[in-house]
Formats: sequence, C-alpha cells, structure tokens
Amino acid sequence: MPVRTEKELLALLQMRCEDDPEANVARAERMIVQAREQGARLVVLPELFKTRYFCQWEDPRFFDLAEPIPGPTTVRMQALAKKLGVVLVVPLFEVRAAGLYHNSAAILDADGTLLGVYRKMHIPHDPLYYEKYYFTPGDTGFRTWATQFGKISVLICWDQWFPEAARLSALQGAEILIYPTAIGWHPQEKAQWGLVQQQAWETVQRAHAITNGLFVAAVNRVGHEGPAEGGLDFWGNSFVCDPYGRILAQGSSDREEIVLAPMDRTLIETMRRHWPFLRDRRIDAYQDLVRRFLD
Amino acid sequence: MPVRTEKELLALLQMRCEDDPEANVARAERMIVQAREQGARLVVLPELFKTRYFCQWEDPRFFDLAEPIPGPTTVRMQALAKKLGVVLVVPLFEVRAAGLYHNSAAILDADGTLLGVYRKMHIPHDPLYYEKYYFTPGDTGFRTWATQFGKISVLICWDQWFPEAARLSALQGAEILIYPTAIGWHPQEKAQWGLVQQQAWETVQRAHAITNGLFVAAVNRVGHEGPAEGGLDFWGNSFVCDPYGRILAQGSSDREEIVLAPMDRTLIETMRRHWPFLRDRRIDAYQDLVRRFLD
Repeated sequence: MPVRTEKELLALLQMRCEDDPEANVARAERMIVQAREQGARLVVLPELFKTRYFCQWEDPRFFDLAEPIPGPTTVRMQALAKKLGVVLVVPLFEVRAAGLYHNSAAILDADGTLLGVYRKMHIPHDPLYYEKYYFTPGDTGFRTWATQFGKISVLICWDQWFPEAARLSALQGAEILIYPTAIGWHPQEKAQWGLVQQQAWETVQRAHAITNGLFVAAVNRVGHEGPAEGGLDFWGNSFVCDPYGRILAQGSSDREEIVLAPMDRTLIETMRRHWPFLRDRRIDAYQDLVRRFLD
Repeated sequence: MPVRTEKELLALLQMRCEDDPEANVARAERMIVQAREQGARLVVLPELFKTRYFCQWEDPRFFDLAEPIPGPTTVRMQALAKKLGVVLVVPLFEVRAAGLYHNSAAILDADGTLLGVYRKMHIPHDPLYYEKYYFTPGDTGFRTWATQFGKISVLICWDQWFPEAARLSALQGAEILIYPTAIGWHPQEKAQWGLVQQQAWETVQRAHAITNGLFVAAVNRVGHEGPAEGGLDFWGNSFVCDPYGRILAQGSSDREEIVLAPMDRTLIETMRRHWPFLRDRRIDAYQDLVRRFLD
C-alpha cells in the first residue's frame, strides 16, 4: 500500500440527528471543519442528515421539512466547500415543485460549484420506513460526477441492495460509490436479527466494490429515534472498502464520529487487471434485466 | 428454523481430482451414494470434475478429454440418479461439434431424466486459467430447471462474479443458485492474497443470495495440481448460504469431503417479504446494462 497522503483521505460523518434542523446543519458544519483539519478532501453526510428520520411516520406536516436544491442548506454548504477546498455530498429532503418531493443529494465540488443532484431511484416502504409516502422515485438515473477528488457516484440507502445501480455507476467510470444511508434496527428484533441484518447490508456493499472493482463508502446515522417502546436504533457502522472488498475504516454502532479512510485509487486498475470482470460481461445476454419477472 | 428433514438436504461433493478420468467418475459415484445415504436429495459435483483442471495449459491434446452431452458420463450418472432418486448436477467438458467445445453442466432429475444443459456463459482467461482457449462462450443463456428438489439455476465458476447472471436466474424463479467451481490460489501469492481472494469469492456469492432472496451453493475442488513449483492450490471452501447470506455449511480448504446443508425454502418468502427488492427494481432505468461502458 502506498503512503497515505492528505489528498487521498475521505471522511464519513456518522452523525446523531436531533429534532432541530438548524442544530443538525450547524453540527454537520463543525464536523466538516474537523474532517478537513484531519486531512479529508471529500466529506460525506448521512441521508436526510438535517432532520430526524421522519419516515417512521406518515404525516403531511413533515413535508414542511423539505427545501429546494439549490436552497438554503445547499448555499451554506457551497460556501463551506469553497472555503475549505473540500468536496461535499449533502443529502437533502428536496421539494422540486408543489407536491413533488425527492430524497436527494447535492454534489458540491471543492470550489463550491453545485455539480448536480442525485434523486434516490429505489424507494423503500416497509414498517417504519414509509418512504413511498414522501419521496417520488428519482428520475435522474444513475450518475457519475467528476470532482476534484475523483469520479464519484452517489446513491442513497435502499439503492444499496440493487447491483444494477452499482453496475451502471461503474460503467460511467465511477471510482467510488457513495451511499448516504439511514438504516437501523427495530429494537424488538435486534437480539435475533441485528447482526444478520447489519452483516447482510455490509456484505452486499462489499460485493459491489468487488464485482465492479472500485471503492465503496457508506455513511449511516446513529442513535435511537422514535418512541422509547419501538422506534429505530440506527446502527452506524459507516465504512469504506477497497476494490477487493477489504474494509479500510469502520465506525461504531452507537457513537457519533468521523470515519476517515485513505483511498489509493491505483488499486482500481490493479484489481481490475487481475480480475477483469468488465472484459467478460455478456452484454449480449442481459436484455431481460429490464423485465420485472421472467414468468 | 424448522426441523431438518431428509427431503431438504443438499450435498456438495468437494472432490480431489486426479489424472485418470475413470477414477474421478468412479469416486464421484461413490460419493454420490454416500451423500444419498446421508439424506441428500440434490448432489452437486465440482466444475470439470472428471479431469484435472487442464486449463493451466494451452495444449490441443486436451480437447480429447471432452465428451458429448448426452454421452458416456451423462448416461452413467442418469442411471445413478434414477437408482438413488437424487437430483444431480454434473459438470462436463462438452464437445458439441467438431472444434466446438463448452464448459457445461448436465442437469439430471431424480428419475434420471436429462433436464437440460447449461453452457458456461462467462469465460475467464488469466494466468493458469486459460479457458478462452478451450471453451466457446455459452449460448444457453441463464436458465432455471424445475427438479424434484425445487427450481434450480446452474451457473459455473467465473459466472459467480457477475450479478447479472444471478439476477436473471432469480427472475426465472430459481430457489437455489448452484455454482460448480474450480478456483484456487497461485501458491506464490497465497500468503499475501489467499484470504483476500477467498473472502472476496465468498462475499460476492453471499451477496447474490441476499440481493435475490434465495439460496446459493458453491462447490469447489481441493488439492494442488500442476508443477510443484507453481500450479494451483484449489481452495475448497464449498459452501451453502441462505437468503440472508448466512453460511449453513462450509468445507475445509484442503480435504475431500461431502458438504451437507439443510434447505428450508420457506425462508425465501419470509426474507423477500421483509426485504422486497424484487418489488422495487427500477426496470425503467436499467437499459444501459447491455452496454460495454458508458463513455
């Protein structure tokens, strides 16, 4: 492994999110400054970092939490990106038009430019993750942005479980797949299923790194949100892995922290040269991937 | 977990393969009988089990090792399948016509019927795995067969690294993805890379189980083949995992053995109900998966 250099460090902000959006934005700003002081050139915030994970409830009042992109938080973060010279991935609850909302992320380059917006393509809807109520499925498709840190793709949470999304990002030249996330345990299931669920989540993302020969960075929140009896325990475990699926850095399951990892992007070429999966894809035989089921 | 019943057991024959094809076939027959005695209703042989892994060399004489399907080995195995009432997956070096060879597998039902043939779709070609010299890429596509043991898809070795193949099998209703394999370490790399490579191989296949909500069974050979200085150390580690990616049974890295695992197929529905990935695939956004690269 080459020597770590400042240039190659990326940081995941494993945050605890509270009721007050302003407090969350201010905390994120402080953590971004800290991460930059520690050498990070790319900093990633967790999904919907500005608020509690309100999708535990289906309540029309929560649409008030949304903001446009660009909008107040984007503008604040653009100023910070420019000031610090750091690439930022800023997930936001986006209002695009009256009655049209997305679970989105703004991609900001190190000079403060808003490079683009990704709108979550795969929307879950399961007990306490009632996202189909709030979020229109994205129409951005899967995208890659050339930042000063390298070519990145941003996908969001539930997208993690779909190899198609990872592949389409890799085919655009992504060097890192970035997954802002809000995933947790139902407390009553945790003893029996906690480890199984967290390991499945990690395994699937490590597999994206391997099958596509690139880095994966997933950033999750921590803390209990919702009623004391019930709610969700967000499981943290934010991590970065390399193209071999090796975990380079990983957060705890319960502490707010900055997870810093080095990225030696020469590994992408090295790994793909030895495991040339992109050479051997049978693109003549994949047509049916656009079908729902083959019955 | 429900009680194990005889009906739900599957067996992987983690074999050591020697020079004499007849000895390998006879050994496989003995192991199939043993596996049946232990309760297995589906038995899977490793890739090219009848021979050494001859693809370490590019030598036209090795084409003599191929046989048609149906052919002598298929017929022997059909008789055994019928006699024992066991489903068999029998990988063979297939000669389909003069000069047209495939890395194939015959799928035999428990009444001895030859249900079909799968021809390896993704063909590797890397140091000591010179398969593009021998094997024409398959034209079967990805298939699922309804056996007396359930709906199975058979893929072969290098196919393991391609999520597209796993997905297309799942979309046909496969309950198990079966991967006959011949994968090993280059001895000179083993100390530094052995664990990384074996874990990547395992991680990717466990991820197929999770993203598709089904069982995965991978069977590999063991033993050193080739020159004492060099050659390949086949790494065994044959395993079965469930739709959560949990490993139910796994072989050693160096011993010939029968790996037996129970299959509770009700887990497929249970898991998919809680993690409904098939519901949320964005089939409107996957068209570019049939492209080589998006540049």
